[in-house]
Amino acid sequence: MAGNPIAVIVGVGPGTGAAIARRFATAYPVALLARSPENFEGLVTEINQSGGKALGVSTDVSSETSVKAAFEKIQQEFGKVPIAAAIFNASARPQRKPLLELTVDEFQAGFDVSSKGAFIFSQAVLPGLIEQAERQDAKYPPTLIFTGATASVKANALMSGFTSPKHALRALSLSIAREFAPKGVHVAHAILDGVIDIPLTREWLKDQPAEAKIAPDDIAETYWNLHQQSRRCFTNEIDIRPMLEKW
Amino acid sequence: MAGNPIAVIVGVGPGTGAAIARRFATAYPVALLARSPENFEGLVTEINQSGGKALGVSTDVSSETSVKAAFEKIQQEFGKVPIAAAIFNASARPQRKPLLELTVDEFQAGFDVSSKGAFIFSQAVLPGLIEQAERQDAKYPPTLIFTGATASVKANALMSGFTSPKHALRALSLSIAREFAPKGVHVAHAILDGVIDIPLTREWLKDQPAEAKIAPDDIAETYWNLHQQSRRCFTNEIDIRPMLEKW
Amino acid sequence: MAGNPIAVIVGVGPGTGAAIARRFATAYPVALLARSPENFEGLVTEINQSGGKALGVSTDVSSETSVKAAFEKIQQEFGKVPIAAAIFNASARPQRKPLLELTVDEFQAGFDVSSKGAFIFSQAVLPGLIEQAERQDAKYPPTLIFTGATASVKANALMSGFTSPKHALRALSLSIAREFAPKGVHVAHAILDGVIDIPLTREWLKDQPAEAKIAPDDIAETYWNLHQQSRRCFTNEIDIRPMLEKW
Amino acid sequence: MAGNPIAVIVGVGPGTGAAIARRFATAYPVALLARSPENFEGLVTEINQSGGKALGVSTDVSSETSVKAAFEKIQQEFGKVPIAAAIFNASARPQRKPLLELTVDEFQAGFDVSSKGAFIFSQAVLPGLIEQAERQDAKYPPTLIFTGATASVKANALMSGFTSPKHALRALSLSIAREFAPKGVHVAHAILDGVIDIPLTREWLKDQPAEAKIAPDDIAETYWNLHQQSRRCFTNEIDIRPMLEKW
Repeated sequence: MAGNPIAVIVGVGPGTGAAIARRFATAYPVALLARSPENFEGLVTEINQSGGKALGVSTDVSSETSVKAAFEKIQQEFGKVPIAAAIFNASARPQRKPLLELTVDEFQAGFDVSSKGAFIFSQAVLPGLIEQAERQDAKYPPTLIFTGATASVKANALMSGFTSPKHALRALSLSIAREFAPKGVHVAHAILDGVIDIPLTREWLKDQPAEAKIAPDDIAETYWNLHQQSRRCFTNEIDIRPMLEKW
Repeated sequence: MAGNPIAVIVGVGPGTGAAIARRFATAYPVALLARSPENFEGLVTEINQSGGKALGVSTDVSSETSVKAAFEKIQQEFGKVPIAAAIFNASARPQRKPLLELTVDEFQAGFDVSSKGAFIFSQAVLPGLIEQAERQDAKYPPTLIFTGATASVKANALMSGFTSPKHALRALSLSIAREFAPKGVHVAHAILDGVIDIPLTREWLKDQPAEAKIAPDDIAETYWNLHQQSRRCFTNEIDIRPMLEKW
Repeated sequence: MAGNPIAVIVGVGPGTGAAIARRFATAYPVALLARSPENFEGLVTEINQSGGKALGVSTDVSSETSVKAAFEKIQQEFGKVPIAAAIFNASARPQRKPLLELTVDEFQAGFDVSSKGAFIFSQAVLPGLIEQAERQDAKYPPTLIFTGATASVKANALMSGFTSPKHALRALSLSIAREFAPKGVHVAHAILDGVIDIPLTREWLKDQPAEAKIAPDDIAETYWNLHQQSRRCFTNEIDIRPMLEKW
Repeated sequence: MAGNPIAVIVGVGPGTGAAIARRFATAYPVALLARSPENFEGLVTEINQSGGKALGVSTDVSSETSVKAAFEKIQQEFGKVPIAAAIFNASARPQRKPLLELTVDEFQAGFDVSSKGAFIFSQAVLPGLIEQAERQDAKYPPTLIFTGATASVKANALMSGFTSPKHALRALSLSIAREFAPKGVHVAHAILDGVIDIPLTREWLKDQPAEAKIAPDDIAETYWNLHQQSRRCFTNEIDIRPMLEKW
């Protein structure tokens, strides 16, 4: 492999994913993956017009075929380049529902993204991350970050369809972290424990100050700081809350 | 519903599941579910000949259709009876494998049992457990126990295909525990942290004393003790190790 | 050492400690330790009159001198006998207080019991427990149980003076468990996550059904079941909640 | 209060504490506390000569009197100023020892620093941190960081005298984090899970590459990044390992 390393972000929507994409685009060409093109089109334009370089690829992360096709497009665009950072930010929506009212498909939906999707994405990016780890001129250790949630460590009632896949994702992240750290790949799991301030949550906590929600730009900055950590200081798990969170 | 309550055990093989079945069969008629009839046939005969009552049903716990068919057979045999205890003891085999060598199907295999299977089983037994909880004459609160493993709480390298589903199972158990405790159903997750002394592991730790492995009969006794706990003393998580375990 | 093994319980008051004492007194002569004699006098009489054998010793568990004196009295009474079970049930009272209003002495008070006291008690009982572990005729593996609380695993605001010592106690218990399991001593930490139904809490949750509080007798039964576990099935941590607990 | 805010670091030795001091001294005047003056004298000179401003104060953090005297000296030097960052980096040395060979004093020694000392230090700095939180011109939310270790979350055998106080410290940190976040103070607990590359450990892991130890400068950078987090993105717990750590 040769050429400048890229960053790959999956789960790019109008909130956290976009903020992460903007942050990493200041340092690397970025490939932005999301199911629906409308989730990345404006952002791709924005980054490309502001001096960065972005490619959007419509991808179903739970489909190995779709992910393989996406990485072929990435290679066509950027060449066979190493990967400096890969961010798994995809997620099914949380849904509160009594266990006996869930269908099997509803229960399983979260796993398509958080277990199968995270696994397929990891397999797709790890060779490029390892390649970057072996390069003498890599500025920072290549980094693979998984976005988690409160449900990653707390299994509340009525949340089985969300908390089970999130626990699975956390385990995947920690297992990969242990396997690939000796190869120089830095893997981290971030527990976002609170409401993130994105369009979807605009109506939530409206009577509260801004400090009741997590700011996507600040998540992005924290992810960037994780990426900057040296081989002698890897963080594998971190939690994030807004100042006013009850926990 | 009327009639004597039963116990239902899924994941009945020649080891832990059989021991649990024998223990609960001293108090209840038992329905024993396993994929392969050879896993329960001898046991069913043994229990029926020694004064208990057992029904074996060949079941693929990851298939809603198969589980529904199994519970129809159970109802034909025992009538529409409440459930005093339900034990989820099914599991995929642990497999050590580098992440990049796993296929998507191999990674997902554990989820069929530990997430989808556990969910389908829970939905199948909870109505009968709730029914038992509402009966004045229930001797003990109805109990739903999930068998976990070291991998339920520790995500080791090379174990992603085992530890991810086990974390998911643990989350499911804790979420169900929180939802159904107020209805009187006692849900517990058991972390079996060590090698269990079953035919499959006969050759393992051969140079070690017997106390290096967990005894299936003793697991069964502990599960029985969990079942006996009152409504004013529910254990929702317990760990189990042999005396010589390093942890 | 010779003679019948005894059980030693520290932190015997009108609630959990008394229930544990009664349960273990059905199998062993019991030594009951508490700071104030009024906490054990009635209970000692009750056990001795109902066919058991009990000795009460006024003890300050945070004082090595006091604990040594107590074990001398125990030896005078029962002889130099092994210890089948030792229960550490002592605790400072939880106190909600803003951090900046706590005095150093108030903050430290809990440590006198939960760290220093638990350590002194452990050192006092472990030789007798090991002795019992080495006896061929021991019915059950000797057991050392520590009573913990919600605060053992959750560090809430305003609770620093309670949660810090309880976390310390849990660590002590788990460290001792790992060190002494290979010697045959079974060590367990119980997380009592809820209000216990004792005289002190009589006015709490008065509008709730009985199932909102943990029953001391049922804790005692669970501790007894832990004691009965075999060397091939040690539980090192268990949680306990009433059916109606929110967690 | 008026004037420029300062940073206060306790537990300044030739390793992590010094690195943290250097990092925070690039932004703030620093007060450096350690028991022995030789631990900070060279560092104070170095910082003052390189354009920063540092004051060293010989302090026994486990003594309220000593800490009060230290903060009076700090006020004499810097005026009654707010505190932008406070780092608790003090620790007793880990010691492997069988439980039955520890004296009560040895067992308690770690608590003097990690429970009593951390509590006294927290009470000393929190008013100044709150003052800073209320200032309109504060660049970053004031931050209180506690240095933890593997033993903060894992209670190994033979380590009771180290792991118990470290668990206590973690609980104190998390409790303070919950209480003071709504006031704008950012509290974080760092789990340093590995050998830190300091003079004390020079002979350890000598046959291993540099990536087998955590680099103090990189810890300092991570602490600085925690300090920079906004009110809408507080990290309360983070782990840190070298690339080659087994965990």
